[in-house]
Amino acid sequence: MPKLSARVESTFASPFRKFLPLAQQAKARGTQVVHLNIGQPDFLMPPDTLDGIGDLYQKFIPYGEAEGQMPLRQAWCQYYEKFGVTLDTEELIITCGASEGIYFTLMAIADLNDQIIVPEPFYANYNGFCQMAGVEIVPLFSSIDDGFPIPGISAFEEAIGPRTKAILLSNPNNPSGKVYNRQMLLDLVGLVRKHDLYLLVDEAYSEFIYEDFEFIPALSFAGVEKNVVVIDSISKRFNACGVRVGAIASRNTELLQNIAKYSRLRLSPPMLGQTFATRALQLSNTYHQELRKDFAERRAYILHRLDGMEGVLYHAPEGAFYLFVRLPIDDSDRFCAWLLTDFAHDGRTVMLSPGTGFYATPGKGKNEVRIAYILEKPALEIAMDCLEHALNVYPGSTKNTSLSAVSV
Amino acid sequence: MPKLSARVESTFASPFRKFLPLAQQAKARGTQVVHLNIGQPDFLMPPDTLDGIGDLYQKFIPYGEAEGQMPLRQAWCQYYEKFGVTLDTEELIITCGASEGIYFTLMAIADLNDQIIVPEPFYANYNGFCQMAGVEIVPLFSSIDDGFPIPGISAFEEAIGPRTKAILLSNPNNPSGKVYNRQMLLDLVGLVRKHDLYLLVDEAYSEFIYEDFEFIPALSFAGVEKNVVVIDSISKRFNACGVRVGAIASRNTELLQNIAKYSRLRLSPPMLGQTFATRALQLSNTYHQELRKDFAERRAYILHRLDGMEGVLYHAPEGAFYLFVRLPIDDSDRFCAWLLTDFAHDGRTVMLSPGTGFYATPGKGKNEVRIAYILEKPALEIAMDCLEHALNVYPGSTKNTSLSAVSV
Repeated sequence: MPKLSARVESTFASPFRKFLPLAQQAKARGTQVVHLNIGQPDFLMPPDTLDGIGDLYQKFIPYGEAEGQMPLRQAWCQYYEKFGVTLDTEELIITCGASEGIYFTLMAIADLNDQIIVPEPFYANYNGFCQMAGVEIVPLFSSIDDGFPIPGISAFEEAIGPRTKAILLSNPNNPSGKVYNRQMLLDLVGLVRKHDLYLLVDEAYSEFIYEDFEFIPALSFAGVEKNVVVIDSISKRFNACGVRVGAIASRNTELLQNIAKYSRLRLSPPMLGQTFATRALQLSNTYHQELRKDFAERRAYILHRLDGMEGVLYHAPEGAFYLFVRLPIDDSDRFCAWLLTDFAHDGRTVMLSPGTGFYATPGKGKNEVRIAYILEKPALEIAMDCLEHALNVYPGSTKNTSLSAVSV
Repeated sequence: MPKLSARVESTFASPFRKFLPLAQQAKARGTQVVHLNIGQPDFLMPPDTLDGIGDLYQKFIPYGEAEGQMPLRQAWCQYYEKFGVTLDTEELIITCGASEGIYFTLMAIADLNDQIIVPEPFYANYNGFCQMAGVEIVPLFSSIDDGFPIPGISAFEEAIGPRTKAILLSNPNNPSGKVYNRQMLLDLVGLVRKHDLYLLVDEAYSEFIYEDFEFIPALSFAGVEKNVVVIDSISKRFNACGVRVGAIASRNTELLQNIAKYSRLRLSPPMLGQTFATRALQLSNTYHQELRKDFAERRAYILHRLDGMEGVLYHAPEGAFYLFVRLPIDDSDRFCAWLLTDFAHDGRTVMLSPGTGFYATPGKGKNEVRIAYILEKPALEIAMDCLEHALNVYPGSTKNTSLSAVSV
């Protein structure tokens, strides 16, 4: 056959999905698989958001505007007011999910072999998008042993070189659950201003902050209007991952107008999803208050269960709905695959995301996994029963050599 | 501000949309703008395709499978049977429009500075996708003077070099309306087999073929299972450009599995659009019979009107719903902009796509425009009245030096 490109052959395999064929095989064998591998909560969408949606498109479903439909852009700007951020509609464009937002932004700010600095662990698919764009990630490692601290500003500054174009964060962080406080962001804001870099902040989880912590929007800082770019998404915020609607928000309208060249090539974001998103963003606050309460309960349950497992190290998430956990295992890829190929407990197993994909530094995350606590309690119970049992029987267990459970 | 990337600054501006700001200004002045610039027909969608769609997603809208939902893949394979093509579901993956299909395929078959051969004029956004992917288009020019002939096989063969990875066609061709006959495709099939290249065929317009012509699916040829890749789309076929659902179909499952690495990075195609597409593909043939009849009438009307304009050269389209026309003008970009900025006839004007974007060869298409005859007759009438009048008053008219109208 004709050759594949070298770049596709070396492309990063998304840790969220690379074992899905194994999960399908497990299901075919009759094993129930509890999916904690992907951040797709099972909460109800906002009510009535799809009501009569067909009636809106009685004749045909047209291409929308490349930058997104104006009512949606207006609704999104209005929504940001609740965080104290005032934006014009020309300062926000709609993308096909945050995924497209990240990719288009990378393409517009960095050329081949340019670098972006990313604290690790980070959202695994950043690896893949950077590979696609030919951009190098310069990771700033933070250790689970120290509770995944945000790297100090001097570490960021030392990592800046002639090819550095941006610092990329997710706040709250996926997978560590860390939330950036005002001082950390102020330091970063000062740094990108000093070095004339972009500060890209993925705020997909901004609604999911636990008590004692506060979400500070990157767009709330003055003096860095040309530097700050926020990547956002409808997916998690409204339990509608499948609508594929995200946004890029920045006061740097020149950048947005350039990104829109890419938007125009792919013509239009999905229209039905945009209708959903427009309605969802117009909802009152109570929807997310309920979700936060429920996620806090799920978090408490998972932490409680992990406390009962020997050799497990975690730090309570400050935001989002992921636990990035050290397990007493030799190799998280092997363990996550084994859970699907060789393990079952009462006919059930659990699918997790192996930790290695969340780092750019080779060898890191080998005994870490990401647990998305996105299902209702009975499913989490099954999942934690499976995990507990699995750690007792997994052939690659390292229990004898690992630390005891530590919570913070 | 921090620098933009060199690649975004040099990115091709889509000819379908680059003058939209001018159209908005014209509308703000009270001018009615008839949009023949983009291929979005105004026919009715298949009936009932959105009925009760909200009821299907009562709880939440989940991520779908990265490669698309199985019922949609099944429906698409079933639909291909009508063209005599039998495909397995693993031989077809769903994309976010044909746009994503083209881009992902380019990324998977070609590395930086690799080449693909494309007969020109071609779908303008190929230029942009190739730029994004760092792939060079080697155009094979065919002239409007000769009726946009498909280049001979020797021209294709001569263009093949050490960096050539593929030949890319659209069949029927957008914008020329040419349809590839069996012998042309057989010749190309032989060539890609001989040189071990990919043959990428964009079949988005396969339903729109006028009498005396026949659509031959690229997947119908034996012996090139690893070479042939079809890019397809729901958009035009079902008057639903805004659902953003396309497909990549190939018997080369190794290629598809590699492309799916990119699919997994962006997680899922849009779910609501996939529901629409699944239903639409299950419809009977009569839907497209009606559309073909109506397009034939629109085509006849436009050709009739062009026959009445001095210095206009066209060739009757064999498929799709575009006319790529030579006009007696100095510069199609200037003319298309002028139609929006300086012209109005009875308070109305027409938006067209300038021809230059449909070529990779610099300087080509300067007196050509693409007319999408996608609106109902009253709108086409207004548009043609405007065009006729505009050609009489346009300051850059070249009527004295141009050819007379020629029809075939």
